[in-house]
Amino acid sequence: MLEDAAPKRTELSALGEFGLIDHLTSGLKSVNASTLKGVGDDCAVIDHGNHVSLVTKDLLIEGVHFDLSYAPLKHLGYKAAAVNISDIVAMNGKPEQMLVGISVSNRFSVESLRELYEGLRLACERYKVDLVGGDTTSSVSGLFISITVIGRALKEEVVYRSTARENDLICVSGDLGGAYMGLLLLEREKQVFKANPNMQPDLEGNDYILERQLKPEPRTDVLEKLRSAGVRPTAMIDISDGLASEIIHIARDSGLGCRIYENKIPIDIVTAEVAAEFRIDPVTAAMNGGEDYELLFTADVNDFDKIKDIQGIHIIGHMTEKAEGEYLISEGGSLYPIEAQGFNHMRED
Amino acid sequence: MLEDAAPKRTELSALGEFGLIDHLTSGLKSVNASTLKGVGDDCAVIDHGNHVSLVTKDLLIEGVHFDLSYAPLKHLGYKAAAVNISDIVAMNGKPEQMLVGISVSNRFSVESLRELYEGLRLACERYKVDLVGGDTTSSVSGLFISITVIGRALKEEVVYRSTARENDLICVSGDLGGAYMGLLLLEREKQVFKANPNMQPDLEGNDYILERQLKPEPRTDVLEKLRSAGVRPTAMIDISDGLASEIIHIARDSGLGCRIYENKIPIDIVTAEVAAEFRIDPVTAAMNGGEDYELLFTADVNDFDKIKDIQGIHIIGHMTEKAEGEYLISEGGSLYPIEAQGFNHMRED
Repeated sequence: MLEDAAPKRTELSALGEFGLIDHLTSGLKSVNASTLKGVGDDCAVIDHGNHVSLVTKDLLIEGVHFDLSYAPLKHLGYKAAAVNISDIVAMNGKPEQMLVGISVSNRFSVESLRELYEGLRLACERYKVDLVGGDTTSSVSGLFISITVIGRALKEEVVYRSTARENDLICVSGDLGGAYMGLLLLEREKQVFKANPNMQPDLEGNDYILERQLKPEPRTDVLEKLRSAGVRPTAMIDISDGLASEIIHIARDSGLGCRIYENKIPIDIVTAEVAAEFRIDPVTAAMNGGEDYELLFTADVNDFDKIKDIQGIHIIGHMTEKAEGEYLISEGGSLYPIEAQGFNHMRED
Repeated sequence: MLEDAAPKRTELSALGEFGLIDHLTSGLKSVNASTLKGVGDDCAVIDHGNHVSLVTKDLLIEGVHFDLSYAPLKHLGYKAAAVNISDIVAMNGKPEQMLVGISVSNRFSVESLRELYEGLRLACERYKVDLVGGDTTSSVSGLFISITVIGRALKEEVVYRSTARENDLICVSGDLGGAYMGLLLLEREKQVFKANPNMQPDLEGNDYILERQLKPEPRTDVLEKLRSAGVRPTAMIDISDGLASEIIHIARDSGLGCRIYENKIPIDIVTAEVAAEFRIDPVTAAMNGGEDYELLFTADVNDFDKIKDIQGIHIIGHMTEKAEGEYLISEGGSLYPIEAQGFNHMRED
């Protein structure tokens, strides 16, 4: 028999989510020739000759990643699928298969699970993904969703996080901070509702940021636009934890520094208005809010002319040598160090 | 926005685990040419030309699939990996990559998660599997483990559940019922300990069945033996839910009936002794106990001579035409209908 645990105790919160994964997966060595990339990017990469499989897995946990009092189950299913599909897209791959594991307590009915699956199916249909496996089991309490998505790419087309080069342009798709402002809005209305259940929620005019929070869309369309324009990103990641956290991943994994210009960060007018209402700087929402699932990528500086005219792509900065650090340049020209303050799903609160 | 759930309520227990998965996944159609097999076997099968990927995903939930009061975390990690590797083996594939999702409450420490990972690593090392991805997040309560394993096989070597033929031999590896008797033993000692914490557990001499429960081993060695003997199974499944449930899967998916001979079912002496102590028929433990992770397969009747001399493989019956039903033949020659009473992880108790 194997041996039991030693009695020493370090709290999980002491390491944080990324620190914990690093700690647990440190020193892993691959033994199979088919394993091209293991832990440390949006997906694992598996060799099949001239093409590869991209594989990603994410958990969504009730009370940590979602709150069923304002996330309807069909949206939740859609989002669970979307965030995993987004990881395949972030490596420049085509999502093809999905496996779903769901664990529910008996406070859920067959009908409510069917709603959840309906959302999964809608996302699968929209992104042409086959649902090829499922494991459904009971839990003692709560709802746990585990999704695995498998994609495909030609080997030479896979785009990693770690391959940005000095002077590359930093680009982002769509706009940022909306999903976070949507979350704040939903949380505020939940508090109002708890205080007075007769109050109607005041969500009018804010559909855009609510959809950003509840029903994110992976940017397969951006990959197509880049392909049409003849632009091949040098490094790419999807924005799940906020721009700050993601650009730091690209910079550190590529051994570089970066400069992002505050006034270039794309922010929608609704995001800006609701941010003003909440007295939050919308740039903070964009940098640290997370869950926008836009693409952050770097591209060769010679592609500037090709990129600048692509609708919905914004050039927000450039990569530097490592010694120059990671900085946000304010409109006034001041330099602020970029710090990852993204969602920490290991925090204790 | 998408629409919300209708108010009708059907309890999850009304459908059971398999019924629920069927209900949720009914009507799924594949759109990608690479999807060779979706829901309904041990693994999904993805086409890569002359070889395929086999992909499986299982959840292990605290309080449903394991009890930390007697399953040490290192064993639990090992078992979580093993049961998924076993699904790849059951399709005659070579397991190569693993992705791990873990959700824990803060009652767990970094050290305890490290124990869990140590068990995962040991299984990966033993079965030459690369751990290529991880997602670790907090939960509101309890421990949830979601594992995905990816394997590889030549396309023509994949063995499905649904391809048994009339008159094929039914064969099983190892022995059955031990994992279930190990579980009963652990549960009894837990009750004794709860009643009197000073009592030492009485587990002596029962190592074999405790290991069967706590540390199952996928039968990669059986695949090698069959290959060496020149035997190619016609259908195969691993025994996770008990012999009864698994042979019914093979029979129904192949459109056939079956006969299993009670006195041919391999049962270890320790299993038989502990079963006697618990006043349980060891055949019942073998048929309905589950978690043995042995291989159940069918083979051409002309392979009889090749199979009968393979150490650790037992011929226990044969496939019949569908109209003959699914029966267990007792030593006295009586016919008992086989019913799947395997673990139901959706039951309400």
